[in-house]
Formats: sequence, C-alpha cells, structure tokens
Amino acid sequence: MRFPTQLFATISISPTRPKTLLHLRRFLSSSIAARIPPPMAASEESLRQALAEKQSAVDAQADAVRALKARAGGAAQAEIDAAVEALKALKVEAGAAARRLQAALSNNGDGAAASSREAFRQAVVNTLERRLFYIPSFKIYRGVAGLYDYGPPGCAVKSNVLAFWRQHFVLEENMLEVDCPCVTPEVVLKASGHVEKFTDLMVKDEKTGTCYRADHLLKDFCKEKLEKDLTLSPEKAAELKHVIMVLDDLSAEELGAKLKEYGITAPDTKNPLSDLYPFNLMFQTSIGPSGLSPGYMRPETAQGIFVNFKDLYYYNGNKLPFAAAQIGQAFRNEISPRQGLLRVREFTLAEIEHFVDPDDKSHPKFVDVANLEFLMFPREEQLAGKSAKPMILGEAVLKGVVNNETLGYFIGRVFLFLTRLGIDKDRLRFRQHLPNEMAHYAADCWDAEIECSYGWIECVGIADRSAYDLRAHSEKSGVPLVAHEKFPEPREVEKLVIVPSKKELGLAFKGSQKMVVEALEAMSEKEALEMKASLESKGEVDFHVCTLGKTVSIMKKMVSISMDKKKEHQRVFTPSVIEPSFGIGRIIYCLFEHSFYTRPSRAEDEQLNVFSFPPLVAPIKCTVFPLIKTQKFDDVAKIIAKSLTAAGISHIIDITGTSIGKRYARTDEIGVPFAITVDSTTSVTIRERDSKQQIRVSIDEVASVVKEVTDGQSTWGDVMWRYPTHSAAHTEEE
Amino acid sequence: MRFPTQLFATISISPTRPKTLLHLRRFLSSSIAARIPPPMAASEESLRQALAEKQSAVDAQADAVRALKARAGGAAQAEIDAAVEALKALKVEAGAAARRLQAALSNNGDGAAASSREAFRQAVVNTLERRLFYIPSFKIYRGVAGLYDYGPPGCAVKSNVLAFWRQHFVLEENMLEVDCPCVTPEVVLKASGHVEKFTDLMVKDEKTGTCYRADHLLKDFCKEKLEKDLTLSPEKAAELKHVIMVLDDLSAEELGAKLKEYGITAPDTKNPLSDLYPFNLMFQTSIGPSGLSPGYMRPETAQGIFVNFKDLYYYNGNKLPFAAAQIGQAFRNEISPRQGLLRVREFTLAEIEHFVDPDDKSHPKFVDVANLEFLMFPREEQLAGKSAKPMILGEAVLKGVVNNETLGYFIGRVFLFLTRLGIDKDRLRFRQHLPNEMAHYAADCWDAEIECSYGWIECVGIADRSAYDLRAHSEKSGVPLVAHEKFPEPREVEKLVIVPSKKELGLAFKGSQKMVVEALEAMSEKEALEMKASLESKGEVDFHVCTLGKTVSIMKKMVSISMDKKKEHQRVFTPSVIEPSFGIGRIIYCLFEHSFYTRPSRAEDEQLNVFSFPPLVAPIKCTVFPLIKTQKFDDVAKIIAKSLTAAGISHIIDITGTSIGKRYARTDEIGVPFAITVDSTTSVTIRERDSKQQIRVSIDEVASVVKEVTDGQSTWGDVMWRYPTHSAAHTEEE
Repeated sequence: MRFPTQLFATISISPTRPKTLLHLRRFLSSSIAARIPPPMAASEESLRQALAEKQSAVDAQADAVRALKARAGGAAQAEIDAAVEALKALKVEAGAAARRLQAALSNNGDGAAASSREAFRQAVVNTLERRLFYIPSFKIYRGVAGLYDYGPPGCAVKSNVLAFWRQHFVLEENMLEVDCPCVTPEVVLKASGHVEKFTDLMVKDEKTGTCYRADHLLKDFCKEKLEKDLTLSPEKAAELKHVIMVLDDLSAEELGAKLKEYGITAPDTKNPLSDLYPFNLMFQTSIGPSGLSPGYMRPETAQGIFVNFKDLYYYNGNKLPFAAAQIGQAFRNEISPRQGLLRVREFTLAEIEHFVDPDDKSHPKFVDVANLEFLMFPREEQLAGKSAKPMILGEAVLKGVVNNETLGYFIGRVFLFLTRLGIDKDRLRFRQHLPNEMAHYAADCWDAEIECSYGWIECVGIADRSAYDLRAHSEKSGVPLVAHEKFPEPREVEKLVIVPSKKELGLAFKGSQKMVVEALEAMSEKEALEMKASLESKGEVDFHVCTLGKTVSIMKKMVSISMDKKKEHQRVFTPSVIEPSFGIGRIIYCLFEHSFYTRPSRAEDEQLNVFSFPPLVAPIKCTVFPLIKTQKFDDVAKIIAKSLTAAGISHIIDITGTSIGKRYARTDEIGVPFAITVDSTTSVTIRERDSKQQIRVSIDEVASVVKEVTDGQSTWGDVMWRYPTHSAAHTEEE
Repeated sequence: MRFPTQLFATISISPTRPKTLLHLRRFLSSSIAARIPPPMAASEESLRQALAEKQSAVDAQADAVRALKARAGGAAQAEIDAAVEALKALKVEAGAAARRLQAALSNNGDGAAASSREAFRQAVVNTLERRLFYIPSFKIYRGVAGLYDYGPPGCAVKSNVLAFWRQHFVLEENMLEVDCPCVTPEVVLKASGHVEKFTDLMVKDEKTGTCYRADHLLKDFCKEKLEKDLTLSPEKAAELKHVIMVLDDLSAEELGAKLKEYGITAPDTKNPLSDLYPFNLMFQTSIGPSGLSPGYMRPETAQGIFVNFKDLYYYNGNKLPFAAAQIGQAFRNEISPRQGLLRVREFTLAEIEHFVDPDDKSHPKFVDVANLEFLMFPREEQLAGKSAKPMILGEAVLKGVVNNETLGYFIGRVFLFLTRLGIDKDRLRFRQHLPNEMAHYAADCWDAEIECSYGWIECVGIADRSAYDLRAHSEKSGVPLVAHEKFPEPREVEKLVIVPSKKELGLAFKGSQKMVVEALEAMSEKEALEMKASLESKGEVDFHVCTLGKTVSIMKKMVSISMDKKKEHQRVFTPSVIEPSFGIGRIIYCLFEHSFYTRPSRAEDEQLNVFSFPPLVAPIKCTVFPLIKTQKFDDVAKIIAKSLTAAGISHIIDITGTSIGKRYARTDEIGVPFAITVDSTTSVTIRERDSKQQIRVSIDEVASVVKEVTDGQSTWGDVMWRYPTHSAAHTEEE
C-alpha cells in the first residue's frame, strides 16, 4: 500500500486562526485550503438542481393526492390510485436523483478518496503507536488531549532530525545558536503582542460549560450540511461553501452572527451556546512566590532571540547580516486539539532569525541554490484557482515572485533540508501567503507545505517580517535594538532645523505657547519648507495647531526654519528579519507518512509494514542477527557490535533466534536500513531494507561498509558493485 | 591564575531543602556541608574565651574608673589617672584579642580563602558573560532571577555535552530514550507526591510582602553572627554552628521557633516576618480552556518514564533489566534563586531509570569499571568527620560500601562521563547519603559532587529508589506496573487461603458481618496460622476488629484457614529502579570553572583568559586565520573551511586581519583547541591552545589532522611526532 498519489489541493485540515492573530507570526496557524475558492463542480450544481426539481414535483403530487382524498363527496378511487402511483414514481425518481448527488459528493470531496486516505493513515498510525514511535502522554491516567510522548524509535528520529537541522543550518551557515528558557515574563509577550492578541474565539455549552472553538463549530456545521443534507438548495450550498472559504476573515461579530443565524448548538448535548469570547492560547503561570509576576510558557522561541539582538550583534563584531537560531519547546493551550501529532499543546520549534540590512537583502550564497527547481505556488496562481507549478528558484527571485535573494536562499535551503530528510519532493510545495494572510508590515511570506493524509500541511514558515519585532521590543524596553553602518567617508546630508522662538511665541500665545512650539517642531519637511517660503514672501502664515483645535497666525520672527548641512559618519537603522520557522513534530509526522509502505510477505499471506527512512534519520542504523542460536555466532555478533560502536553507528543485536525473516520484518517496521546476518565466523551478509538485496562482507570490513552507506559517502548501489551479492540470500523462510 | 587547590570540605552553598522533601528524590536539593559537624577549631574557642575575659576585665576596670570619679569628695587625680591608664591598657589588650579572633575566623572559614575564591569566580563569570557563554534572560527588561540564556559558545558546549551524554549512556548502553512533555496533569504529580510535598518553607515581610526562604534567613543570620559578632560567647557560637548543621532536619515548627527566638526580621527593611508556610515549588498552570484541569510544569523528567513503564517493558521484549532515558527541561519556581547557574528556575535534566529485578542487582558489565579508582566519601567517613578517600570501585561494592553492582556500575560510568568532559578528577567525589538524607524506601544513594568556588556541588544523583515510584503510579492509576519472571518449570508454592463463611458470620454479626469478613481476610500469615491453631484446639477465639472498634468471638465454623499447595508458572513483581539524574547546567558551570585559567601575555603586560576545554566539548573545534589580509590567503582559508565542513568539524574563519596574537587570545578565551594559520598557499600551521605549540601541515592534510585530534583518535602529542614543529612559530607579536 502506498499513499494515493493524486494531489489534494483543496482539502484542508489545518484549523485556521481568527483574524486577531494576523499581526503575529502566522506559523502553524493557517492553511491554504480554506482560502482558495473551490469551484463548485458543474455536475454537483446540476444534480442539486435536478434533485430540488424532483423534490418539488413529489411535494406537488403529494398535495394533489391529499386534495383528491379530501375532496367533498370523495374522488373516484381509480383517480386516487392513479395519483398515488404517479407519486410513487416521482419518489423513485427523486430517490435516484438523491443517490446520484450523494455519489457525486463522495467522489468530489471527501468520499472514496477520503476513505482510502483514512485507511492509509490508520495503517501508519497503528504501526507508529504499536512500535512506540509515539504514545499519548500519561496514557495510564487516560491521557491529556494534545500531548504526546516520543517513544524510543520516535525519539531517535527526532534527535536525528534535530542533529541534521543543526548541521545543515547552524554549522554550515555559522549561525549563532542560543538556548533561552520557556518561562517568559509577561512584559516580553506584551511587547510582542501575544498577551493581547494570541487568542482563539471560544463558545461554551451554557449548561455543561464544555468549551468549543467557534470557527470549528461553524466549519463542522457547514461541512456536515454540505455532505449529508441532500435537500440543500444550490444557493444554500454555495453560501455554506463561501462561509468555509472566508472563515479566517470573519470578525468576531460576523462569526457570532453566523452561529446564531444557523442555530448552531453544542455538538454533543444540543444545549444552547454562550456568546463567543477570546481565549488566550498561552499557558499562564506565576514566576516566584509573590503571585505578582505573571509569566507564560513561550508560544514560540523567536522572542528569546529578539530580546538578545544587541548582545548577538556585538558578538558578531557589530556586522550584518547574521543569523541566530534556537531549538526548543513551545506551548499553545489549544481549546480542543485534534489531528494527532499535527496540532498539539507542546511541540519542538526550530527557528532562525536572519538579521539583514533592509536596503540590501542580497545573499552571497544564493547562487548555490538558484538552479533548484521545485513546486511553487505563488499568490497569483492561488487567486486564479490554479495549482502549484515547478519553478526554478533563481527565476522566481529574478521575476520578483519571491521578494528578495535572502528569502529565496532560505526557501532553497529548506527545500534541500526537507528532501534530504526523506520528504517526497512531489508532495512538497512552497506556497506564498495571500495579502489577507500576511501582517501589514511583512514583506513576503512563503510556507513549505507537505501533503499528507490530512491534506497540505504547513510545516515551515519562511517570512520576511521587516523591522517589526525589533522595533516592538525597542519601544517597550527603551533599549535601542539597532544596527550601525559606518560610512567609509563621512557623508554630507541636508537636515531640516526648526527653531521656534519661545520668547516671541510666549508673548503672542501666553499659556498656549507650549502647544504651538510642539506643533511647529513636529512639522514634516514639506510643511516646514512651505511655511518658510510663505513667511519669506508674506511675513505671516496661518498654522493649524491640532492640540489647540484652532488656527493661529505665525509671524516671521516667531520661528527660524533652515536646511543645515551636516556630516554624518554612520547610518543607524533597525535591521529587517527573515524568519524560517520549523514545526519539527509536523515535519516528522509527514516524514512518517511519506516513508511508510506495505509489501506482501514471501508467503504472500500477510502485508508487512516498512518505513523507508534514509539512514540519516533512521532510528537505528543497523541490526546484527546471529543466524542461529550458537555461541560462536553470538561471539562474532559481539565483535561486530564493538566495531560498530567504535564507528559511532547505532545498532541493536537480536539474539532471540526467531526466524531471520521475522527479524527482518520486525526491523523493517521501524525503518532500520541495514541488517547484518552472522552466518559464518569469517564473513557476514548485509541486507538493504527496501531492495532486500544482500552482499557478503568480511567481518573486518563490515563496520566500515555500514559507515560508508549510512554516512552518505557511498550509496547502496556503490557497495553492491564492490562486494559479491549473497548467492543464497537469507529470506523470510529461514 | 588557577583555582586555589585546597579542598573546601566544609564550605557549603547549595541551599538545602527542608524535611518535607525527604521522600521525593533529593537531586539538586541537598548538600553535604551543613551535615558534617565542622569541629570548632581549638584556637577559635580559646580565642573567643580570651576575648570574653579581656572584655570583662575592661568592663570591670571601666566600672572602677566610674566609681573613683563618682566617689563622694572626689578621689585623688593621680589615682583616677592611674585607673584610666590601666583601662586603656586593658582596651588595647582586648582589641588585640579581638583582632586575633577575627584573623582566626578569616583563615578558618570564609576569610582570605573565600576572597581568593570570590576573585577567581569573578574572573570566570566576567569572561563567561562577556563572551556570551550565558546571559541573564530578558536582560533588556531587567531580567528575571534564576533564568539564564545560553549564548552561542555556551549553547554549543551544552549541545556537545548532551551529544556525548547520549553517546556514552543511551547508545553505548542501548537505553530506550523517550521525550515527554513538560506540561503535566495534576494527577501524575499527586501520585509522585510532588503536589503535596514539593515545598519550601517561606516567610513574608509583613509590611512589603517580600518573600524569603525561612531556612535561608536562619542560616544567613547564624553565619553573619559567627563571622562578625566578636562578642559572641563560645557557647553561643557553638549553638549557632549547631543550628547550621541541623538546618535540614528542623521541622517547620522548630524552624519557626528559631526565627522567633533569634528575633530575625526581614533583611532589607527590618520589618517583622509572617509565620512560615509551605510554598509549592512547581510552576502551576491550567490545561485547556475550562480552567478545571490544573497542571504543572514538570519538576523532573523521571515521571514521564515511570508512567510509560508498561509500554517500555513490552518494547524491550518483556525482559529485565533495561534502562530508559530522557533529556529535557525541568522547572522549579524557587523562592529566591541565588548562585548564578547553580540554582535556577528552569534547567536541563538528563535522567536514566534503570529497571532491575530487586532480587538480582548484578550487572554484566560491572567488570569494565571495577578497577576504576577515585574519591569516595562513604557514610562512615562523613560521620567520623573524615574526608573523602580514593577507593577502588570493585572493592567498594565487594565490601558492601556501595549497595550493589548496578549502582556501582553507574557510579563508574558517571565518573568516566564527567572526567572525559574535562572535570578534574581530584575535585570530583562520590558522596553517600547519610541515613537522614535518604527516603525510607531508598536502598542507597550516592551523589557525584564537584568542587568549585561555591564549594562541593551536587551535580549527579545516583539513587537506588527500590520500587517506590512504580508502586505509587500503580496505585493511583490502577494499572499494574509490574514485571514477570517465567519459571523454566512450574514451582510449587504454599499459599495461605482464608475463606470466611459469610452465612455463619451473617447469622452471628448481622450488619457487622462485612467488617468481620474483611478483617479476617486481611490477617497476616502469622495471625491466620495462630487463629487456625486456636480454633483447632479451642474451637473459639477472640478476634479484634479494628473497623468495629471491638473484639468479637470467632467460632470454628465461621472461617476455614488452610495452606494450599499451588503450582506457579511465573513470579510477578515490581522492579526496582536505579536512577542516575544529571543536572546538566551544574555540570557545565563546574566544567567552566575547572577549565578556566589565566596566563600572562607575551609582553607580560596583561593576563589572558583561557578555557582549556577538551575538543569533545569545545564550542568550536578550530579557527582559520589568514596571517595577513590578502586574496590568496583568503582563498586558501576558504578551501580549508570547505574541507573542515566536509569532515564535520565546526570552525570559524577570522579574516579581520587583527594581529595573529590577538586572534589567538580571542579564541583561547572561548576555548577553541586548535588554530590554523594560513601563511602560505601550500602548507599552514596548526597551533594547540594550551601548549601554544605549532606544527606545519600541508593544506590537503589539515582537515584530517584536525579531525584526528578532535575525534580523540590521536593526541596532540601523537601528531607532534609526525609533523615538523613550526620553526618560527606565530606569536602574539605578529
């Protein structure tokens, strides 16, 4: 079983965040699906129309039958019988029309394809849970929604993904990695806007107090109506589809009004719902014993980097650009987490903040990625209802589709990172944010979206956030978070100088003097130069002072306005920040789905599960199997294990003596790429997981061969050339 | 400057936890110093005595002078003068006695040695903060006590320490690593005892509300009195020393009484203090939107492993022993954190839970560590006021000093781990817990303590916690967390069977029947057999039923008691757990101190700082310095950088063109072990940090040579033999 290969461009699962989050980074919060109008299939519309017509005909005929029966004196029985027969026939036709619509809806949206996706997901998830890749946390206490443990193989995969992330980004790019606490005082998250705006809209069951996400309820209601209510008029169906489409853009008032309009009640109890109100998604706590210092568990790791900008800039020799990075836990107290590992209350983020001069966003290493070609989904294609298309990154930047080289460079590096992990490049696309998804200050944003059984999932956000974050913390803390560009030679700049004469203004305006002085000083360059010209020509000018609410007359002697020339030695500016932000758990889940397949056992009596992880992320690189239970083979296994340890290759020995086929299957299922079978005291076989091919290698060489193929120095194909294939390969029968 | 080498066996800084914590794991909570009676120096006692005598003589003479002056009619002036002279002389003597005492106190306890330690610590901490090894978190908002960020070099050291931990423990021992969330529901921490007992005793300033740890106040009061109050009688001094000694063992009532007795007030305001009350050290929060699910940020990572025992045991093929491990953040809302990185509110723990059959704690790999010899500090030595002494681990286990092989094995592995990181083995000791430090269920506990400027710091706790944790979660969750031992052949066992006759008991006791039945079933084997004997001989027996509060008469027909023979196929038992628990931040801080030294610059005009990190933990393995600013050297530097990246060696290029000596000094200060200086286009020099020796190596070979010495395949000494030393070594002058 492989995952069905068609693309699900219009299937969404990632619950979207209400508008209030727009100005915060949108990572992990939005999905494309709801935003792109899914064109209503022509057949669906006509089928709904046909069903509605049949239904009216049925209704009319039923009225006619009733009228006949009720006729004073009674109609002839034959006439009534004929009418009833006609009604029956019409009902049969209406039933057929309903079935046709039902079938169309199934094929169209979430029917047959959905159930095949469901089955695939169930197979993956069953294997993952059974082999302890992950476990619902605190299971013996019946668990907590949205919290998961990584068990041994999952934990190993995660630590391999993080090690590669550190290698690929931090080390190769000389980033400054930091490690900040999760506990964060309120002031920091006030500056970032999270205290005020990091909320979802919630309603409560008025009787039981159970909480629901308002947009979930509305969406579920619309989807259920569309899927199950066959009597829906085409107009109503279009309206509900429109609601799903604009869900993210509804204000709190509009969302509340819709819930009322549709008469939506609590899903389980059908009780009435409360008004909606915002619920802050941060876990709140209190720092220290006094109860007077509110704090939160950070909802992202980025703020820890921003507040350290000054020190990091100094550490980098006061030079731009540079990037800081952080890997760590983040926390979001979701109202009602769904979708397994994709929406959880605690997760690992890996974030990069690349600080750059806003006037120069070129990147010296852009050439290294310019020739990459992969699926991109620019804004225009989305709005035109088209699909993602392969583009060459260099051209995308050249044509201005991607805003700048640095953003483009990170898009390319993210593509390399994900595909080297084992993400299928045909099910990976970079989608540009639509204007209504982006914060007003953002220059450009692209999400790396990976397709899995839940649809296209946002796994990495790559945003050019301009100077927003550093400015916010500068303002709140009073510490300027700026960079300096020293000019090679001082530059002469013209600077406007406005000097109000406090004495003259005092005489003229008495108590209002201060307001007039402030208004004069606050003039823009244009206003000041106009006033200067007027004063020089007319000696007097009308001037509106907002704070006084009136217009006053300014005389020439009351203010001196001039353009002074000044030498400047440096430029002081707030750097822009380009932020690639990785949801590690989401990437890992998608990787699980992309790596999973089943194949028949040799006897073809059962389906065996395989995770085709590349060695880079495989939880264990190889296994050692003594073919049969005997001391001499066990001794050889120990010698090999020792050499594998020395070579730094993770491995396990399985001396259970179970059939070799069962042992292969058991480790295929956790994605171990290589199995060493000890069948003699001089040489052994190495088996590759996906091809099941085996080569024979001497005991001295086995560790170095495995190291070569797991380190990526050689491919399996390379070593196949060098060593004899094992003539009588060990099979599932042994 | 090197850290003064004497041992500070009696200097404590680690604030101790009150008794309420005793039944919880004690990691990071206790210190030896306060527990070992510091014998009062003979000289100190006699000096206090002498001073007291001189002071009384002064007082007496002053009285005499006053009496002379007041004598009716007036004393002769000569007589008064003589008395005043005598008083002056006595005062001089008293002054001298006071100075002698002061000097003794300084040498003794916290005087000259303390200030040299202070100076050393200041030098280390200044360097660490200046080079961003760590930074007080949220500094631009004036920080939060007890929260620190690791900056780039600190973060790199930390990630190297964790990678080595994973290699040394998880991979080499095939442990099952898991990764559980920090957010933990209340029920889990109720079972573990943390909700009820993870508290410190606190008092508040009654006017300002400022909070203090009660034991801190008492300790500070006693220490200050002892150091500064020269008029203290020897008896009083002994009493205060005793209080410090037993601080950990005081009950809440005793602690409160002492605060009152000594009239201790708020340190800053001198306001009166509130009564003391327990403050729970866990950060509390709420899971989900309802406000009805309290949760906490985990105070340790161990509970995540215990609750998963059943799954992990299954994963391990239902076999014991096995170990699970976890690295992650833990949180403790300290009342008033002090001591920099040593007591913080959020920290990284690395914990191992090794599950073992309580009847067989042998360890197959114990032989690998049995010959290690290092400082051990058994209970007996501590109680006898002796110091730690070198012991051979195998002998310590053989003699029963260490309870069992598995515990001993981990002690040995911890020793190897710490010394390979760069901890000085002469300032590392393993201290056994005293009986009053250990929980009642614990079999044995040893702390790895590392000496630094704060004294001996507990950095790793290694405890045999018996079956306590698994039992607690079994009881609370109702899920049996047990192991099974299948017998090769069924065993015949005798089993007590008590069958009360409900009918007879009902007739006899009516409504009380149920209580009597339960009491009979709850009898121990001994009680039951006694009852059986009595019934057989007398036919009747008195039986006390607690739940009824009275004694009833039991007749033979009311109960059948027999010893049945039964075949058992397996043994079901709760495994013991041996828990090595590592405070990663504390280990890193001690490593910083052990690695730090200063040496004069070549011109001997300043002291240069060096961190002598071994390559394993060094934040960056090597630097590349083009000797002078020229394109061809820069190009060579780039080629070398590429080959270093390919070899996986972290490095930085410094093309600033600053003098080579300055560049060496700059990287010595962050502990970079090797510097490559590009001074030709064919070969370069490699300089070793501590010896400052340089060898000349061709450009093709440089990456592999650096890899050899950083991977630990060769030592610097080895490669010194193979390559020519650089005749005209680059120096600080260049």
